[in-house]
Parts: sequence; structure tokens; C-alpha cells
Amino acid sequence: MHFGSDNIVGASQPVLDAILAANSGAEPSYGADSVKKRVDKMFCDLFERDVQVFLVATGTGANALCVSAMTPPWGMCISNEESHINGEETGAPELYTGGAKLMTLKGDKGRLLPDVLDAYVRNLSPGFYQMPAKSISVSQLNECGIAYTPDEIAALSDVAKKYRLWMHMDGARFANALVHRKVTPAEMTWKSGVDILSFGATKNGALAAEAIVVFRPELAEAMEYRRKRAGQTISKGRLLSSQFIGYLENDHWLSNARHANAMAAELKAGLEKIPGIRLPWEVEGNEVFPVMPRKVFKALKDAGAVFYEWPTRSVAAADKPGADETMARLVTSFQTTADEVAQFVDVAAKAA
Amino acid sequence: MHFGSDNIVGASQPVLDAILAANSGAEPSYGADSVKKRVDKMFCDLFERDVQVFLVATGTGANALCVSAMTPPWGMCISNEESHINGEETGAPELYTGGAKLMTLKGDKGRLLPDVLDAYVRNLSPGFYQMPAKSISVSQLNECGIAYTPDEIAALSDVAKKYRLWMHMDGARFANALVHRKVTPAEMTWKSGVDILSFGATKNGALAAEAIVVFRPELAEAMEYRRKRAGQTISKGRLLSSQFIGYLENDHWLSNARHANAMAAELKAGLEKIPGIRLPWEVEGNEVFPVMPRKVFKALKDAGAVFYEWPTRSVAAADKPGADETMARLVTSFQTTADEVAQFVDVAAKAA
Amino acid sequence: MHFGSDNIVGASQPVLDAILAANSGAEPSYGADSVKKRVDKMFCDLFERDVQVFLVATGTGANALCVSAMTPPWGMCISNEESHINGEETGAPELYTGGAKLMTLKGDKGRLLPDVLDAYVRNLSPGFYQMPAKSISVSQLNECGIAYTPDEIAALSDVAKKYRLWMHMDGARFANALVHRKVTPAEMTWKSGVDILSFGATKNGALAAEAIVVFRPELAEAMEYRRKRAGQTISKGRLLSSQFIGYLENDHWLSNARHANAMAAELKAGLEKIPGIRLPWEVEGNEVFPVMPRKVFKALKDAGAVFYEWPTRSVAAADKPGADETMARLVTSFQTTADEVAQFVDVAAKAA
Amino acid sequence: MHFGSDNIVGASQPVLDAILAANSGAEPSYGADSVKKRVDKMFCDLFERDVQVFLVATGTGANALCVSAMTPPWGMCISNEESHINGEETGAPELYTGGAKLMTLKGDKGRLLPDVLDAYVRNLSPGFYQMPAKSISVSQLNECGIAYTPDEIAALSDVAKKYRLWMHMDGARFANALVHRKVTPAEMTWKSGVDILSFGATKNGALAAEAIVVFRPELAEAMEYRRKRAGQTISKGRLLSSQFIGYLENDHWLSNARHANAMAAELKAGLEKIPGIRLPWEVEGNEVFPVMPRKVFKALKDAGAVFYEWPTRSVAAADKPGADETMARLVTSFQTTADEVAQFVDVAAKAA
Repeated sequence: MHFGSDNIVGASQPVLDAILAANSGAEPSYGADSVKKRVDKMFCDLFERDVQVFLVATGTGANALCVSAMTPPWGMCISNEESHINGEETGAPELYTGGAKLMTLKGDKGRLLPDVLDAYVRNLSPGFYQMPAKSISVSQLNECGIAYTPDEIAALSDVAKKYRLWMHMDGARFANALVHRKVTPAEMTWKSGVDILSFGATKNGALAAEAIVVFRPELAEAMEYRRKRAGQTISKGRLLSSQFIGYLENDHWLSNARHANAMAAELKAGLEKIPGIRLPWEVEGNEVFPVMPRKVFKALKDAGAVFYEWPTRSVAAADKPGADETMARLVTSFQTTADEVAQFVDVAAKAA
Repeated sequence: MHFGSDNIVGASQPVLDAILAANSGAEPSYGADSVKKRVDKMFCDLFERDVQVFLVATGTGANALCVSAMTPPWGMCISNEESHINGEETGAPELYTGGAKLMTLKGDKGRLLPDVLDAYVRNLSPGFYQMPAKSISVSQLNECGIAYTPDEIAALSDVAKKYRLWMHMDGARFANALVHRKVTPAEMTWKSGVDILSFGATKNGALAAEAIVVFRPELAEAMEYRRKRAGQTISKGRLLSSQFIGYLENDHWLSNARHANAMAAELKAGLEKIPGIRLPWEVEGNEVFPVMPRKVFKALKDAGAVFYEWPTRSVAAADKPGADETMARLVTSFQTTADEVAQFVDVAAKAA
Repeated sequence: MHFGSDNIVGASQPVLDAILAANSGAEPSYGADSVKKRVDKMFCDLFERDVQVFLVATGTGANALCVSAMTPPWGMCISNEESHINGEETGAPELYTGGAKLMTLKGDKGRLLPDVLDAYVRNLSPGFYQMPAKSISVSQLNECGIAYTPDEIAALSDVAKKYRLWMHMDGARFANALVHRKVTPAEMTWKSGVDILSFGATKNGALAAEAIVVFRPELAEAMEYRRKRAGQTISKGRLLSSQFIGYLENDHWLSNARHANAMAAELKAGLEKIPGIRLPWEVEGNEVFPVMPRKVFKALKDAGAVFYEWPTRSVAAADKPGADETMARLVTSFQTTADEVAQFVDVAAKAA
Repeated sequence: MHFGSDNIVGASQPVLDAILAANSGAEPSYGADSVKKRVDKMFCDLFERDVQVFLVATGTGANALCVSAMTPPWGMCISNEESHINGEETGAPELYTGGAKLMTLKGDKGRLLPDVLDAYVRNLSPGFYQMPAKSISVSQLNECGIAYTPDEIAALSDVAKKYRLWMHMDGARFANALVHRKVTPAEMTWKSGVDILSFGATKNGALAAEAIVVFRPELAEAMEYRRKRAGQTISKGRLLSSQFIGYLENDHWLSNARHANAMAAELKAGLEKIPGIRLPWEVEGNEVFPVMPRKVFKALKDAGAVFYEWPTRSVAAADKPGADETMARLVTSFQTTADEVAQFVDVAAKAA
């Protein structure tokens, strides 16, 4: 019963196979390998246009590079108060940007909201003592497990354009959002106004691989330098590139995401039938956030389930856990089994 | 005939096997995995003492983290003018330290020299407008392919201690130096005064794996934070840790290095017999720097050999290439074959 | 009717006289002047203990240096959401620290509150992805014109000590707070737990002079380097030092502050008698924040009064301006005249 | 006999008078004062074109802001190995740029040389591991007391333009160079290809005032933000602006520089007549670098003369001080008297 995160599993077999296939012989290093050229082509096909692609090994590296390309050291990057870049990356965006400010706004279930963004930027002082807003960042899935719709993204983009802000998508769980929303990668990103994307692969099957996908050439100009100075340029580049061959070929990434989402849907279906357990947030990917009696939480832990309590800051007032309740986060992955889910639901039901 | 670098090959089989062995099941992420605990133990055994070990995916990441742990933003880290941290890392140490200065000194065949170091630091102005020296860094092998002896390291350490400077070793080719010098890892490092080590593995067989080995606990204090904010904390940590299992077990790393060094020795032996080819620097690892007639260089390139011309800044005046000559760098690896070497020597001999 | 800020006036006569008196002859530069030695002595006397004093020309420089001494680049400095360091210094603390995060908390009328601070720090995740809290900063006067009592400061210090956080006081209007609270500089600072102080002088009579007063020797260790690299070390140091002679001698600074506070008290007394005008926050120094009908605001502007509308974020819900109202900030200085005050009140009364 | 530096004297009377004249009444703060508008006009007249002017209190602040406007954090700013920005500013350019590298080149008597610059940049590796050259900086006077000619500057500018590098002039002693070369400010700067200038005033009479003069609008775009976040925006701006009124009106600055230069010329004339004393470098401003017997050095010190020994790195081999000699730096100022000079020469002559 492993629901702690989607990075507790290993790499998926097609990804491993692709690494092994690319491993023999000699190839230029630092991203000049022939495999990378294939990957570039795959990304252009995937996004139905020319894109520039920079591969890195960590999501924090990808996000911080994206933020640094969009935001001068004297500017602000705006995100929801739950955003991973603000709260879980130990200041990597601040490091990579050279001191930019991550300004966070309240929203709805982890969403950055167009009207809140508009009001905030509109009311900023024009004085030079005020760091100017320069960019925004949204997470997909967001940190409450919600998948923005293309329309929601476009509405944010409209505000961003109005104030000349670049727009980043932290797609750590991009695949999960995509298969939930049943839209194309293009619709989810540049067609809705996204300028630069952290295309996550690690959580959904890769060994250690994320792609920065750039839709605005000016954001790519210095990226090779930025990536190298951040220590993010992988030496044996083909062993990074090849992960995307395995990940993208045969829609493997979408299959993985569909499986994880299906397991989350089963968890949701099972848990919400249990008296005393409720879900303040929709399940729109591979994350489930049940509020449950503490005794149920304890019973699950005692039964060996791996998962975490979760902050309730973004839970609506009416839905906040009561004194005897707590909220948990459950994450499914491409390896989660229906048995694990059933067992978890069973333990919870019995304890309730 | 691939002598461009030692990162143009893939990962070695034992490393791949170890990754595959560690891949199944669930493990805590971000370095809390059980494999990492085994690796910690192996490093303590290897260095015959307690050490703290932080794993990262790139050598630039490892070096820049080490430099940042030793050097405040208002201080200087001193190295030889050929040093990789100064010239080939796009300012990563400057980024990670927040603006420290990499001061470089002239030396002998890439070596930082104790008396040069001593004179430089002694003559620094004591005024606050002068950034104070805070650390030194030596590369092993150094950038001219030279393996410092423990005595040379100890002599540098004496100067460093005199001025209270921390001492880092960039061990991108640590294994090659070690097997050449026939000393223990402990003798090469902390017993000779090294405070913190970038223990390279990628060039010598790993997929993407470097270890920061800390011999001074105070240098490890903030390292977890520093690593995460640098985007260097690998999510599926066991797939990084496990590379060291494969790398270290059964002295695989030493075998790999011995093979690479043997190939370099063969190259040297073959080349120096050819009239018109000479080696200004000793071959003390897996790098060979022949000065050759330009026509030989061209013949080799025409024959498909992959290798690079190399700057001659650190070549002694008497040994500098003449007008019709050039210097090249040849790097061997654990995959270099005796055939490749023989073929290269053969082409060179015929062209000379 | 100049109530725009306390930095719209020039320097006071004793400060100018002291500069002129120090101007002749030769003196060592960069702070090694004899005048600085006298100033050091005066500060030690003033604070009844040994202190280390570093002079700079700007409040932002002083604050950012203090924050950088307390906070590593991977840590957080916590302040109230109104704090000047967070909102009006264009990211200077982020620059000087090398990317630390300024975390802001809600409070009461601009105050950082001990229980809010305690809860926030207590609930921080212990994981390395969470930037750790390392310091706090309070403004005196705070940004709502409130003067913390020594007891309030001590209560914050207790929480700070509990979590090993350094405590900074941004004393841009230190003199105004001091004369209001009728306590000693020692009581207001180190006796209540403050570790490092930005001792403001510019707003209260100096030409361009702020003092960093350090109560913890470890926070002063690198300050000379930090100040110089920030471009904050004044070349002709005595022309900076001497400002403090004029400022501190004969309690000139306290006289100035008493006058400014008295003018603010008169403003308050006059305004609160006017129907339709009310003061959500106490007047505890030289700042008055009246909520007034928009027509009164307009009449004052039409009459040539210089002052600004002010954000109402920290106004309690019950006190927020209504649709036809707005809040203003009025700042008095050592040069404000009773006539200016009377005229302002008069215009407001007639317009109400 | 004060020849330690030109910042050991106070401000000149016209500068003080201008401050006092601007001191009364209320003026907008942070540079929006009416005096600044007059100063802007004066600078446009002085440089015979539109320029953008940003005032700061320190030369290090001015230089570091200029370098940061020209150089991205992943780029290099190239200067002569004697440059003040590299050696005497404690890493301020590194801080303000966010980690750019100051690359220094050998030259001739402190000059950056066009052919050396060209060769260096031409031979830089095009790989992304190499920080790209982005800007150059020259000092006027340079650190050996030499005044570049407009032709020399233009020749450097030609190389800079060839490689698309911005060009900064550190004019800490701009006035001294100008009156020596008898050219206009325009000829010395933008007409010869300078893009941005640190226009020094403090050493030549101001209290604490330097002007950043921008000839390329794109370099000014973010300057207000950069200046404020560096803590370099002076609160009571008119007390900074007014210094330039006093400094520039009636050619006061040129008179001051002519006097200082004349005193240096007298020092030179007197010293070079003394057997055993020689001047390896020309006197082209207000700095004299005599090589003298150590016994003369000692006699001067014993007689109370204030001046410093100076590094001889840039002295030509043939001119280096012998074992019993040393080199000193003597700096004259607008307050240096002929008597001081005569006394110094006299003591030296007697001791020789």
C-alpha cells in the first residue's frame, strides 16, 4: 500500500529498455547525441509545432531554469500559495534567478485565479521600490490534484498578456492532467498561452528525466548557458535523451498516466463510500486527498500503508477537517495495483 | 577511434545491472532509500573513516556544491589556471556560491604549486576591498592529465592550513589517478589534507553519478539544503545510489580505471616512437597530450578519429608546438580497445 | 502642507554643522577616520554596552546587510506582511543574501505576533525541500505607525530563541518609537532580545546616514566584506561619521523625534474631531493614518497638501474604508510646523 | 604631505555650498527632486547629447551597476588585470551581476589592449561550458595613472563591437584624464564607443556622489530597479543631486582636476631629478608612481608623509624595482598644496 508519492517507484520497463538500447557505442556528450535529435523531433510532433527542448534530470532543475528564463532578478514570478516552486524547492528559483521574488496568491483548490491575479498586478505600486511582476507559474496537476482546463489556462494567459507576464507550466504531472482532460499537449499549453513548460517524466516512469519545452524562442536564447551553470547538463546525454524515447514511444507515457489515474479513481470511489470519509477536492489525476477520522488514519498506518498527512490551508472553510479528523494525500503511480487500492479501502472501511 | 572524452561511452554493465537490481518495488525518494545506506557504508569502508556522502548527477553540480560549502560569497577559491571549475563550468561555482571569485594561479603542467599559492595569499592586501582567500581546489587527474602525489597534496594542504583555507579535490578522474599512484583513497585525500572531494564516477562507468565525500562535518552541515536548492537532489534516489553499488563492488571502478590507463599507456608508447610526435606532459592516467605535425592531425581526422586540439597555455615554452604543429588531447575509457589504439598509432605513424 | 514622507526634508542644521566641522584636513578613508571612533564610543554609551557599528548611506542598504548577516541563502527571514524589507526594497534582501526568502505573516496593525510566528515555524516541514526559518525582522515604528513595546519585542524574541532565529529591528523610525515609548535604546533593543539593528537617522535629520548596530559579535564578523561588496562603504567616511556626531550630540535626534511626534499628535487630535474622519490605528510616532471621505481627500489635494493614499490590507475588517472613503498616510518630520498641521486640519474640517 | 589617496580630503566648498543651497524646504525623495532635473540637463549639455543619468553615493556602486547592466550572470566582463572592479571592490560586480565572471587580461601599464582583447575573445571556446564574453571595462585614469586617448578607446571599441561586447568606462578619475588629454567629455566617451560611464565626482571634490551616465538606452531600462535593489537609491535625493550642481557649475570639476594634475606634474618634475628615483609610468593625471631606494621610502615615512607602497605587477621587466628599491603611489587632489609637494621632494632629495 504505497501511496506516499509517485517517485517511490522505479523506472518503467520501456524507459529502461530505451536506456539499454542507447548505451552501446560512442556518442557525443552534453546533449549533442543523436538520440536527442530524435527526441527533439518527437516533441515537435507531440506539440504540433517547432519547440526547443532542454533535458535535465530533476523537476526542480527544470522549474527553476524556466522561472529564471522568464524573470529578471529584480522581478516577481507569481503563483498560487500552494505552488511547489515556492514551497518545496528550497529556494531553487531564487537561486537560479539571482534573487527574484516568488509572490504567491490565494486561489481555489490550488488554482491561480485570473481575477485574483489581475487585481494583484493592477494594484502593484508603479514605484521602483516595488519589484515588478514579470511572470506567472501554474502547476499541472496543481498541488491539490486539480487539472486546469485549457479555458482556465487561457483565461490566466489573457491576464498575463495584459500585463506582459510570461507564463510557465510546471508539468510535473502533465501526463495525468492531459489524460484526465482528454485534450492534446498543444491545447494544454501553447494554444492556451503557455510560454514555457516543465514536461515531467520522472514521476510517470522515467529514471530521472524532465524536459523543458520552450514555445517562445526568446526564452530559449540563454538556456544552454543557464543549464550548464546550474550543473544540469548531463554528461552522457544519450542516457537522458533515451529515456524520452521509451517514455514517449507507443504512447507509453499516456498509458502510464491512464493507469495511475484509474487507480486514483478507484481509491476515490472506494473511500467516498465510507461513512466519515470525504473528499474536499475533485480527483482529476493521480492524487486523492481524503479527510478521514484520525482513527482511520491510524489504522491505515498501523496496517503498513505509506502516505502522508497534508496541510489543509487550501481546503474551503466548510470542508476543513474537524478536531478528530485529518486530511491525507494519496498518490498513485503506473505501478499501483488494484489490490493495493482494494486493501487500502478495506482497511479504511473497517476502521471507520 | 574514439578519444574525444571519457563521457562519450555509455554506462558499464555492472552499473546498469545494479540499477536494474534496485529498480523494483517501492523505496523512499530523495536519498532516503535503503540503497543509499549501503553506499554510505561502502564509502566509509573505502575511506577508512566516517565520511558524509551526498550524491548528485553531474560533476559540475558536485564541484559547485563543494566550492559553495567552502567559500563565502565574498571570498575566493584558488585553483590552477587550467582548472575545470574556472573554465569549463559556465560559472556554476559563481552561481552556487552567490558570487565568490575563482582566482587562478599559474603552475606546472596544470598543478597548483605550494610556493605559488603561498606567495599569492601572503601578498594579498589585508584591506576589506580585497576578497579574502577562503579555499583551494585541485583536480585529480588535473587538466593536463597529471596525478598529484599524496606528498604534493600534503604540501598544498600545509599552505592551505597556514592560511585557514579549505581544500577541495575535483576527482572527476579520481580512479585514474588512484590506480596510477597506487595509493589508497584515504592517502589520496583526507590523510593528505583534502577536506571535501568530488568523487567522480560518470566518466569511469556510471550512468550519471558523482559523490560529494565530506571529511569535515562542518562542510556537510548545510549540504542537504544546498543540494536541493541547486536542483541536484535526484527524485528516485535509489537509481542514483545503486550506480555506486555497481561501481564500487568488486573493485569494478578500479578495474575500469586500470584498463583506461593501460590504453593511454599504449597510446603513449606508440606515439612517442613516431618521429615528429612528442609528449610535453607525462601520462599519469587516461589522458595523452601529443604534440604532432598538423599533417598528422589532419590524417587522423580524415581517418575518422574523434579527438580535439587542445590549448597549449600550460605547455612549457621549450615544448610549445611550432608553426606546423598542434597539440591534441586523447582520452581513453573503460571501453577503449587495444585495436582502436593500434589503429590510431598506425594512422599517425604513416602520416608522419 | 508636506506630509508625504519624512525624507522630503533636508538635513537638520546640527547635522550639517557637524559635516562642515569634519570637512577640513586629511582623514583616512573608508571608515578608518577619527570621527568614526568617536561615533563608536557614542553608540556604546547610548546602548550601555559594547556594540559594533557599521555606517551606510541608505536604509535599504542597512536592512539588507542585516538580513544577509542573519540569513543563509537557503533560509527564510520572517516579517509582517507589511514589512518594508519585503515590499519596498525591490528585493535588496534577496540580492544581499543571495536568494533567501522573505516570508511574511499576517499580524495586528503591522505587528509580527509571537503566537503567529510560533505556529508558523512549528508547522514548517522538517524536510530539506523546505527552506528553514533563520531570522525575523520587525520594524520600529512599524509600517502602520505602531511602536512595539519592549515587552512585545521580548515576547517575539522568546519565540525566536526557541527556534534559534536571529532577530533584526528595522529602526528606520527608531527615534520616534523610542520617545513615544519613553524607554532607553538598550531596553528597546538588546535587553529585549534584538540581535542587530538598523539605526535610522536619515528620516529624522541626517543627510544620508544609517547605522548598523550589532549586538552579537558573530553577526559582525563578515560585515566589512559584505558592506564593501554591496557598494555601501562610503569613501570619505568622516562625512558620513560626522552626521552621527550632529545627530546624537545634545540629544538632537530625540528632540527631532519629539517634535515630529508632537506634530503627529496634533494632526491626530485635529482630525479625529472631524465628523467622518477616523483613525483605525493608534498614533505612536510620526505617522497618522486617517480614513476620510473621498471628498475630503480631494479637497486636501486641491489645497496643495502632499500626502498619499495607503493600502488598507492591515486595517481590521470593521474599520475598512467604505465605498466613499479612503485611507491616507500622513508623516510628520522635525521640520513640520504647527501651522502646516492647523492648515491641513482646517481644510479637512471644511471639506467634511 | 598627504598623498595616500584623493579620498582623504573632504568635499570642496562649491559642493558644500550647493548642498546647503538645496537643503531647505520640501522636495520629492528618491531622485524625483527638481535639482536632479537640472543635473540631467547639465549632463546632456556636457555630453552634447541625450544621456540618462543615475546618481549613487559610491564608485563601487556605480561600477557594479554598470557591469550588471552589461553582463548577464552567465557572461564575462573583461578588463585589465589591474582593474579596480576586479581587485578592489570585494566582488561587488559579482554580487550585482549575480555571478558573472570578471576576466582579466595582461596589458601595458594598466591598459586593456585591443589586440590582446581580440585574441582572447577570438580563441574562446564556442561551447556552452565557456562563459561568453559580454562586456569590457576600462578605467580612466587607469590603475597605473594612465589616461587612455580617444583613439585608444576607439580601438578597443572596434574590437568590442566586432564581438558584440558592451563597453564601460570606470571614470573614477575621469576629470583628471579629461584635462590631461584636453578633449571633450563626448570625445572621451560615446564618440569613442563607450556605452556606459561611471562618472566619478567624489575623489575630485564631491561629498559622496557618482553618476552613471548611459549612452545606450537599453542599458538604462532596468537601472532604476537595479539601483534600488542594490540599496543605492539615496533617500533625500536632492542632497546627492545638488553635489553635481556645485561640482559641474563654473567648470569647478575641471579646475579641481587641473590643480591636482598640476601638483602631480610638480611631484614628477621634482622626483625625477633625484638620483636613484625613476618613474616607470607616465604621469597623465593626478597619480605618480616613483620607484625609489628603500631608504628614501623610509625617510619619507619618517618625515610623516602619507602614501603607500604599490604592487609592481604591471611594471615592465626592465623597470622593476631592484632589491633595495620599492615602488610607491602618490595621489594628489584638489587640496594638495605646492608646499606639500616641495616638502616631499625635499625630504626625498635629502635622503637619496
